[in-house]
Amino acid sequence: MNLEKIKNPEFIKQLNIEELEDLASDIRQFIIKSVSQTGGHFSSNLGIVELTIALHYIFDSPQDKMIYDVGHQSYVHKILTGRAKDFTTLRQFEGLSGFQKRKESVHDVWEAGHSSTAISGGIGMAVARDLNHEDGDVLCIVGDAAIMSGESFEALNHLGSIDSKVIIILNDNDMSISKNVGGFSNFLSEVRISTQYKNAKYNYVSFLEKSKLGKKVYKFTKRIKDHIKENVLEDNIFGEFGLDYIGPVDGHDFRELFNALSLAKEMSHSVVVHVHTIKGKGYVLAENDRQGVYHGVAPFDYKEGIYKKESQLMSWSAVVSSQIEKLMKEDEDIVVITPAMISGSCLGEIFRKYPNRSFDVGIAEEHAMTFAAGLSVAHKKPYITIYSSFLQRCYDQINHDIARMNLPCLIGVDRCGLVGADGETHHGVFDISFLSAIPHIVYMTPKNTQEARRMVNTAMKNFDMPYIMRFPRGNVFDCDVATDEFIEIGTWEKIIDDQTHHLTVITYDAKVDTVKELIEKNHLPINLVNARFIKPMDEKMLNEFYDNHQDLIIYETDLMIGSLGSMIAKYYSQNHMNISIDYLGIDDRYTPQGDVETLLKYENMSLDDLFNVIKEKCHEEGKS
Amino acid sequence: MNLEKIKNPEFIKQLNIEELEDLASDIRQFIIKSVSQTGGHFSSNLGIVELTIALHYIFDSPQDKMIYDVGHQSYVHKILTGRAKDFTTLRQFEGLSGFQKRKESVHDVWEAGHSSTAISGGIGMAVARDLNHEDGDVLCIVGDAAIMSGESFEALNHLGSIDSKVIIILNDNDMSISKNVGGFSNFLSEVRISTQYKNAKYNYVSFLEKSKLGKKVYKFTKRIKDHIKENVLEDNIFGEFGLDYIGPVDGHDFRELFNALSLAKEMSHSVVVHVHTIKGKGYVLAENDRQGVYHGVAPFDYKEGIYKKESQLMSWSAVVSSQIEKLMKEDEDIVVITPAMISGSCLGEIFRKYPNRSFDVGIAEEHAMTFAAGLSVAHKKPYITIYSSFLQRCYDQINHDIARMNLPCLIGVDRCGLVGADGETHHGVFDISFLSAIPHIVYMTPKNTQEARRMVNTAMKNFDMPYIMRFPRGNVFDCDVATDEFIEIGTWEKIIDDQTHHLTVITYDAKVDTVKELIEKNHLPINLVNARFIKPMDEKMLNEFYDNHQDLIIYETDLMIGSLGSMIAKYYSQNHMNISIDYLGIDDRYTPQGDVETLLKYENMSLDDLFNVIKEKCHEEGKS
Repeated sequence: MNLEKIKNPEFIKQLNIEELEDLASDIRQFIIKSVSQTGGHFSSNLGIVELTIALHYIFDSPQDKMIYDVGHQSYVHKILTGRAKDFTTLRQFEGLSGFQKRKESVHDVWEAGHSSTAISGGIGMAVARDLNHEDGDVLCIVGDAAIMSGESFEALNHLGSIDSKVIIILNDNDMSISKNVGGFSNFLSEVRISTQYKNAKYNYVSFLEKSKLGKKVYKFTKRIKDHIKENVLEDNIFGEFGLDYIGPVDGHDFRELFNALSLAKEMSHSVVVHVHTIKGKGYVLAENDRQGVYHGVAPFDYKEGIYKKESQLMSWSAVVSSQIEKLMKEDEDIVVITPAMISGSCLGEIFRKYPNRSFDVGIAEEHAMTFAAGLSVAHKKPYITIYSSFLQRCYDQINHDIARMNLPCLIGVDRCGLVGADGETHHGVFDISFLSAIPHIVYMTPKNTQEARRMVNTAMKNFDMPYIMRFPRGNVFDCDVATDEFIEIGTWEKIIDDQTHHLTVITYDAKVDTVKELIEKNHLPINLVNARFIKPMDEKMLNEFYDNHQDLIIYETDLMIGSLGSMIAKYYSQNHMNISIDYLGIDDRYTPQGDVETLLKYENMSLDDLFNVIKEKCHEEGKS
Repeated sequence: MNLEKIKNPEFIKQLNIEELEDLASDIRQFIIKSVSQTGGHFSSNLGIVELTIALHYIFDSPQDKMIYDVGHQSYVHKILTGRAKDFTTLRQFEGLSGFQKRKESVHDVWEAGHSSTAISGGIGMAVARDLNHEDGDVLCIVGDAAIMSGESFEALNHLGSIDSKVIIILNDNDMSISKNVGGFSNFLSEVRISTQYKNAKYNYVSFLEKSKLGKKVYKFTKRIKDHIKENVLEDNIFGEFGLDYIGPVDGHDFRELFNALSLAKEMSHSVVVHVHTIKGKGYVLAENDRQGVYHGVAPFDYKEGIYKKESQLMSWSAVVSSQIEKLMKEDEDIVVITPAMISGSCLGEIFRKYPNRSFDVGIAEEHAMTFAAGLSVAHKKPYITIYSSFLQRCYDQINHDIARMNLPCLIGVDRCGLVGADGETHHGVFDISFLSAIPHIVYMTPKNTQEARRMVNTAMKNFDMPYIMRFPRGNVFDCDVATDEFIEIGTWEKIIDDQTHHLTVITYDAKVDTVKELIEKNHLPINLVNARFIKPMDEKMLNEFYDNHQDLIIYETDLMIGSLGSMIAKYYSQNHMNISIDYLGIDDRYTPQGDVETLLKYENMSLDDLFNVIKEKCHEEGKS
């Protein structure tokens, strides 16, 4: 069928199983073609096709509220709620979001981007419903990795102690982004193996008829109770949280899904429906992918599949990891920790070579950081790397555990600055504002890969306090030559230094080189400084600028409040040094999705914007 | 015995059960007398006397590492490791810490103050031990409330999937700070009831003899396996995390404790020893206390017990709660959320009057905040109150869930500024630095209780975005008269405004009144402003100061980096307004424990320090 003509999910309820299977097939083909053209989340959406259809078949959105945890697997939901036509704009500036987005549709009742918020949010909606004496189910669709995160556990614990009903759909594909970890994961595996769900095609037709008589009949019908019992693993973890459990169910079999979801709908108590799905279902390369290559994709030819192009470029993550790997050879005390981001953080090689010294703790940023603290107390040298945006999850652990005890370690903050298509939940623009005030830390940001390598060396050699190194998303030229050099803590670098110039641009990270090009190309009479330490700042150099009557332009592509610029302003003010400063950075708002170039323009901090500020300043100077 | 003569816990191993019971009794009397004189954590330490003795009897600290989660229940450990003589200085400036402190003793291998970090830290130490092929057990002593927090679950999940052995002592007193909540808590209750541990005084003597033959013998001895089985609840939650389980054990019976701990010591795999203790044991008033009155105490007469004095003073928490309660009468949509702090946040009355609209989610700050987001999405009006220092645990949820979705709510940030005796883990001095950069928020700080009440009214009436109100620890005069008045967003208040003065002090919260007194008492020719909105700032007034050639003193008792002062410095710099500012605030370091007056002097931000800065400025002005 023409998916673009779908207005809302009502039509599904008229279809029979065969027609639903055709619909599933059409949706799958649509996703394969569309997402391979635009890029986006691929495997998880292929895995959830039948489950999403079944949810809309049994339940009535938006009366029944569907919360997709994280939201990156909500494409089928978007298609069924009238948004297929917008998929050409997926994840582009002002286009369709890659997550649920409340302004897009009444069927999107929640927004996320970070994992494991669905159950907490769902409980809030369910409690509100009951206080208002309203109807409607709340459905939280949560992956098997996300349900093992601390916040999900907290929510499960709360849910088990209250009367408000929430239906949790555990979308278990045994590998969420990449392979799962944790004791609880082993438990899920055992459930999958021990229960021969393929053979358990019990017939619920009679139950479904009875269910119309209402919940009261249902609750006291022994026959139904037996049905539940047959499908409930007694004394499993959900039971101990006080929740009912149905499953596991084949997530690609409509009859099984309908039976389980109908049962869940009729129950009066919160219940976990354990659905087993195959990530990447219907696209063989994605089905067989254990590395997460097809989790989130850039545009690719779906007939060919994704293949790695030869390139002289490496991702920043890969560069940092390769330097860590080099040091691990020489220093047996170095250990590596990631919260479920082996692939994203390019740690695969380290995990292969040093399996005993590499730790994937699952989506558990809090534990990851305090675990690192414990290792550091015991004189190991932990490298923990977390995306800037997800680092927000362990602010307290960095502050209360790592920095307060002044525990040596290296924290790699990946995906800093604007990240592009993932949008406001993923831009790594807050870390300077929330980390800078933490005492005891050294906070670095390299201009290029050689400097990154030197900073890694410095942190691991000095190893006297917590070192934090932030680096951006994306690729960078790297000759892939490890270095043994170090860097002096708290020193900035003068890139262009001409005594006759009265204007200095201060910037950091990869912007140093691009600004240098801009200056050289346009023969601008200005100096340039690489502020490679956010903390401590190079106060000697700051004093020099004042003594030499420099005007400053501070060029950041992070949030302005609490940024390096703020700290510089405070420094001069506190020392009663009057100096003229212009600032570029992100205003007090969330930056939306879009390609980075567009977003830089949107936030008035593109190279052109910088160029204009420079010209204006030079013009002023010429006049004065 | 004279506890002050204890140098280390070696002597315990020579004592027989009767002597140990005498020791326990002596320690209990010591704690009752000493803590009732100094103040400190009371009930939890009385409850853990036999357990701590048993730990030091069976294990060898510091070779075996003992991590007390939070650390407030480590007093017995401190006494047994040679620190009884220091208890007169408990929680005082430069005195004995109320938590484990590494610099105090080699027996303190970890530090905390916030809950639920012990298992994560312990896993780090255990992994390091195994990588180094070293010996020694790692023991994490965790309360029943702390083990239900997200970070603990993350750690349990990780622990179940690795070989490194950690012994978790679940110190279950069925009420940690106050009554526990959560489905998992119900599970623990059932375990307690279903297992008649009082009658289960199995004899482990033969086992103990056998155990000396080593782990290999043990592992294959069926008899021992049966012993385990007898005491293991199969298929309980810890089993599903992949952990062994022993218990429940009577935490006041040395024989039971020795048996269970010996068994745990001999096992080769991580194990949870479930110990049931009675909080406040040995002091009847504390044993019967279900409100947490004896959890943390100020000095009191232990012969009389704690009784509430009549006072015209109310705590800030009580004032804010009383205003919320008033509004709840009129507005059925207001709901209240606390993470295990009913008593500390003075919410008892609200929970009694509005049980359906009051939610204690346990020690689960992350869930608390996202739960509030869900309620707000469904048009309820949540008031969530969390101590400033614990708010660090839900930075991401405030940013990613509440503020990004721009969800109306009121967040009460309690215990802001220096809190005194709890020290560096509890000072609420970071919140301005980490919250200010978050978009969409209104961030308020009232000077007195009437202003607090007006701010509560304003947030709940406008209810158009997230409102955050910070208020300090301690008591304040309040006529307990609720008000219906509002306050205009983003307006500061001129407290003293004389056109002939050229110096203005900007401050906020209760400091406004104390500075006013200082100025009036000394007839100082300066103006005073109540900067009651941290965000948005009153830019109109900031411009006026510049236009009127005012010199400014910004007086804060929070961290200077990222403070209101930083934002003001940035504002003037960005607008190229040259203005002279002096700053008082906390330097880039963690402030230790001590009474607040002492700490203010230590950080050079007492009223005297302010007075000196003012005098100097006036002197300069006189000269110019």
